[in-house]
Amino acid sequence: MNARVNESLKKCGALAYGDFVLSSGKRSPYYIDIKKASTDPEVLAVIALEMSRTLSAEGVKFDKIAGVVLGSIPLAVALSLETKMPYVMVRKEKKYHGTGKLVEGALGKGERVLVVEDVITSAASVAEAITTLRNEGAVVEAVLAVVDRQEGGRERLEGMNVRLLSLLTARDLLGA
Amino acid sequence: MNARVNESLKKCGALAYGDFVLSSGKRSPYYIDIKKASTDPEVLAVIALEMSRTLSAEGVKFDKIAGVVLGSIPLAVALSLETKMPYVMVRKEKKYHGTGKLVEGALGKGERVLVVEDVITSAASVAEAITTLRNEGAVVEAVLAVVDRQEGGRERLEGMNVRLLSLLTARDLLGA
Repeated sequence: MNARVNESLKKCGALAYGDFVLSSGKRSPYYIDIKKASTDPEVLAVIALEMSRTLSAEGVKFDKIAGVVLGSIPLAVALSLETKMPYVMVRKEKKYHGTGKLVEGALGKGERVLVVEDVITSAASVAEAITTLRNEGAVVEAVLAVVDRQEGGRERLEGMNVRLLSLLTARDLLGA
Repeated sequence: MNARVNESLKKCGALAYGDFVLSSGKRSPYYIDIKKASTDPEVLAVIALEMSRTLSAEGVKFDKIAGVVLGSIPLAVALSLETKMPYVMVRKEKKYHGTGKLVEGALGKGERVLVVEDVITSAASVAEAITTLRNEGAVVEAVLAVVDRQEGGRERLEGMNVRLLSLLTARDLLGA
């Protein structure tokens, strides 16, 4: 567990304990309002710093960072500023009706892309982004999330040969 | 003219001179690929620092920063990290078919919101965002852009009692 991030989320009110009904209809003993965290510059700076430390400690090598529109763009931008590595923005295909591209930002064939995500539940959204990035010729081997809710996301990503790293897991939050 | 930003845009290839046809159909002797700039962490850091200096020098007071989805979110995030002021993300009403809100992030009634934008042409997009923010009870008195193309944006914003500040203008770019 990343104690600094845990403390930071609790302090800004992004992490609350109680009896919550999630958008999926499931009940949960905790709730994470990750937008509250990522729009607070002090919390966002802590998350980016701890993400950078985790990547170094785990020896993850990457050429680009990718964030999924819209929720993970602040994480991608903050980690990019922290690590000085450029980032791309990946749109969700079904939601997108504009004229731009699915991947915004320069992406070369064979570049190793680290995908960042706020909260991983089943990893459906991030799995779609990985497919989009791979279709563009990128190599995706790792996802780094703030919170892994441990509801099948890790297994789904393993099935795509992608490793899931996270700063916090559901077990961390429930034990805290 | 902000010489550091000008130099930085040219160096990363985001600013090019030639004979360009814009998406509006108009011809232009210069072209700005602002995504090239805002996805490069070193250029983005320069822009955020120079934005912060401009706001101090001009005495602009604000409680929150706002960026328009998607292009200006990186600017809003980077300026938020630089100034330690929180930000909100404003969606474009017509393009948005999701279930979220038009304004993502906490926004209180009467809060002074500074809107940041990458390139201002007619200011149509930013004018819509100002209306959205005002409908939520925010006070919007200033917009800070990286580039003011000087094609009616300033006048349009003045008509809404909003002051336009920019790091670079078309005149700066054409004279450079």
